[in-house]
Amino acid sequence: MSRTDDLYLELARLLRDAALLGSCSNVLGWDEQTFMPEGGAQFRSEQLGLIAGLTHERATSPRIGELLSELEAAGDLGDPDGDRAVNVREARRSYNRATKLPRRLVEELSRTTTLAQQAWVKARGDSEFSIFLPWLEKMIGLKREEAQCIGFGSGVAYDALLDDYEPGATTADIAKVFAPLRDELVKLVAAIHHSSKRPNIDILTRHYPKTPQMVLSEGASRSIGFDFERGRIDASAHPFCSGFGPGDCRLTTRYNDHHFPSAFFGVLHESGHGIYDQGLPTESFGLGIGQAVSLGIHESQSRLWENFVGRSESFWRYMYPTAQLAFPQALGQVGFDDFHFAINDVRPSFIRVEADEVTYNLHIMLRFEIEQLLVSGELQPADVPGVWNEKFSQYFGLNVPNDSQGCLQDIHWSGGLLGYFPTYALGNMYAAQFYNAARRDLGDLEEQFAKGQFKPLKAWLNEKIHNHGKRYSARRLVEVVTGESLSHVPLVEHLNRKFGALYGLN
Amino acid sequence: MSRTDDLYLELARLLRDAALLGSCSNVLGWDEQTFMPEGGAQFRSEQLGLIAGLTHERATSPRIGELLSELEAAGDLGDPDGDRAVNVREARRSYNRATKLPRRLVEELSRTTTLAQQAWVKARGDSEFSIFLPWLEKMIGLKREEAQCIGFGSGVAYDALLDDYEPGATTADIAKVFAPLRDELVKLVAAIHHSSKRPNIDILTRHYPKTPQMVLSEGASRSIGFDFERGRIDASAHPFCSGFGPGDCRLTTRYNDHHFPSAFFGVLHESGHGIYDQGLPTESFGLGIGQAVSLGIHESQSRLWENFVGRSESFWRYMYPTAQLAFPQALGQVGFDDFHFAINDVRPSFIRVEADEVTYNLHIMLRFEIEQLLVSGELQPADVPGVWNEKFSQYFGLNVPNDSQGCLQDIHWSGGLLGYFPTYALGNMYAAQFYNAARRDLGDLEEQFAKGQFKPLKAWLNEKIHNHGKRYSARRLVEVVTGESLSHVPLVEHLNRKFGALYGLN
Repeated sequence: MSRTDDLYLELARLLRDAALLGSCSNVLGWDEQTFMPEGGAQFRSEQLGLIAGLTHERATSPRIGELLSELEAAGDLGDPDGDRAVNVREARRSYNRATKLPRRLVEELSRTTTLAQQAWVKARGDSEFSIFLPWLEKMIGLKREEAQCIGFGSGVAYDALLDDYEPGATTADIAKVFAPLRDELVKLVAAIHHSSKRPNIDILTRHYPKTPQMVLSEGASRSIGFDFERGRIDASAHPFCSGFGPGDCRLTTRYNDHHFPSAFFGVLHESGHGIYDQGLPTESFGLGIGQAVSLGIHESQSRLWENFVGRSESFWRYMYPTAQLAFPQALGQVGFDDFHFAINDVRPSFIRVEADEVTYNLHIMLRFEIEQLLVSGELQPADVPGVWNEKFSQYFGLNVPNDSQGCLQDIHWSGGLLGYFPTYALGNMYAAQFYNAARRDLGDLEEQFAKGQFKPLKAWLNEKIHNHGKRYSARRLVEVVTGESLSHVPLVEHLNRKFGALYGLN
Repeated sequence: MSRTDDLYLELARLLRDAALLGSCSNVLGWDEQTFMPEGGAQFRSEQLGLIAGLTHERATSPRIGELLSELEAAGDLGDPDGDRAVNVREARRSYNRATKLPRRLVEELSRTTTLAQQAWVKARGDSEFSIFLPWLEKMIGLKREEAQCIGFGSGVAYDALLDDYEPGATTADIAKVFAPLRDELVKLVAAIHHSSKRPNIDILTRHYPKTPQMVLSEGASRSIGFDFERGRIDASAHPFCSGFGPGDCRLTTRYNDHHFPSAFFGVLHESGHGIYDQGLPTESFGLGIGQAVSLGIHESQSRLWENFVGRSESFWRYMYPTAQLAFPQALGQVGFDDFHFAINDVRPSFIRVEADEVTYNLHIMLRFEIEQLLVSGELQPADVPGVWNEKFSQYFGLNVPNDSQGCLQDIHWSGGLLGYFPTYALGNMYAAQFYNAARRDLGDLEEQFAKGQFKPLKAWLNEKIHNHGKRYSARRLVEVVTGESLSHVPLVEHLNRKFGALYGLN
């Protein structure tokens, strides 16, 4: 073994141990959201705080810094896209981010998050922005400070925050695709608005008993390739996917007896995240090659399975007979076309998480614009409701009735997650690009779906995307897999084609 | 603040942090037994191994040793039964045990446990003792080494092992109560054997659907005082109680559609453990005053609720109408006396965990005797099956058909838990003593149970036992609470009275 081998193996061991410790938080966090009795909340927060501190200590240990410097100086890490070079590159990236933030700032962000979220819950409940305002001001201040600590060569502070969720992406890159996407979406929404066709969405709010909902959604999850020997699905108030580590990935959903899409599409969505997680190379746990590329790429996987597969006509050719058997009262007399149209209803609405495939992206753009102004200092937190409502009316043609249905609806800002929102819309664009590439490579996917064949698509995603972990940045991955750069065009084409047909647009 | 205050507070903080870290293992362990998918086993063992190592590191940190020495030298800890003196005393006890074992031995025990348990599972499945023998030999060797490291002033190595589970108890003390208890039990079993009365136990193996089993057993658990805002019950293959920490205590049970007692009495049993756990002073988490006295005292709480309350006539006066409503097919036509007799069936059987209130203790004594001989070296592991079967025939009048139903039935030895078994029978004796004392203080408990009033008993246990944590040793606690020393007499009186009546013995 060479000296470089020794250094590399020691680094890998330290990184793996830090990740192993961090993964214990995932188990505790999952339990907190799924099964923990109310009385355990205070103690759980102490457990999580301790593990977070210990994990941070390990992830920022000076020994990691030394090993990285030595390895970088030695310079014989081989192919820059090879596992070893990638793992060192990504370790450096994480180490720099973790060590650039002073402990005081990390702790203040953590404390502020807890308090800001409590204030936000109350503010949203009362629809009273003034309750949240001081915390938003404090949070924006801290996040601007964080951006300064991280640094941003571009001159745009928002880039430093964005980079935490979508490494390598810049505000300018995103703005460049968001602008034409917005124009196209506004056009499509208007066309749909003027169409004389409307689905009957009342069929989706009939009585859907919980047990067959569980059976159907778990069956769908299994069909598309989520492995229940290495994962499971439970109920929680807010759906999520938590990959604990090799062999154990937990999904959650919420069941609403009178709303079919919530659990079903929620499960498909989280299953997309879970399939990505289960496809990461297990032997590289804790290293770059064993980690997801970015939130945008993660979201592309959930959106691909939820929307491109799960809301397609061909998927329901396969699934609808089973759905009718599961819900004879609600769906027994509902024709296929009516059902498929209903689950693809498009209409402007106030709440992002309830939005359809088309308008969803507009919700994101509005947040992206406001966040940039907040971080640059051009917009004062106190002015958020006014700007929000003005932009909302401009994009959606709707007047926001109150801040609960407006700027107070999302948890993100109270949690310090500034720069996170754009990854949702990036995910939609990436998904469209990947889906086109898969169709190019695999032939008629829709014909496969109609027969319940999802393995070819899953295997393709495993091979092209999941297996590589962070080998490529999101931007490069899209180029390597699809042969083209990030673009809004495939998404727009998909939406125009699909909804043009459904709504009978020219 | 005095110097002693400073030292004490630092010690308390270190102990609390070590316990907090250790408590994360409990969450991981609980999940492993309840919800974890099969594929997560390997990763989970790595998580648990890491946390165990870190916890051990903290619990044995030299700083704790320094603080203890300084506090002990200062000698101004106040009342020796006061919180501070008790916490220092117990910290010393744990610290000494933890630091006396060389790391090599701890690691070898841990490795051997994993492998020995795998071998045991196979050996039990095949009823082939030779598969387990080399591991039992290795384990006994390691445990004898452990006893040497811990030390034993008494000259009896088994004392050092026993002390881990029942601090302060000695082999001689236990033998002194076990001998007369055995004689009395053998007499009682013989009398029951010769009685012409026999319950119809077939009524307990009718169809008991799982959902009403859950409803009834959770209802009973709630009635006796287990707090579901600070705990919950789930299903697992092997029932257990895991107190994570303040405000969160998890119980498990197993449901058998064709055996009523399994889940119901299992839940009462674990609820007894859980009520103890929930009654420990939360502000002393991680310190002696916040910890259970011993396994024997813990078991006294589970046995008290399971047997003294849960199998009593008065308890079922309250509960039986509900049970009949819950299981109309199985119990609708079964008279009260028949049901109550059936759940108190006594008959010699091979398996400890399925044994009744009377014969259970004989199973323990047999193991206690064999363990002592193994640890002293008087019995070779290879000779265990022969000795087991001989003793079994002597105590139970039954010939053991194979080792799966004999010396291979329990997991304990493969897990290195030598010295653990006697605590089960100690629990039964303590329970009888506590129950007598409670009756003395609270009047006619049976009349209260028949009305569903369990709060007075629970409050009494909280006040007399739970609130004190490790303030007193088990031996002293019994004296303080009951005014008498550990004795087999109350248990024997209880059993003779109860089963004399049921079986119509003179």
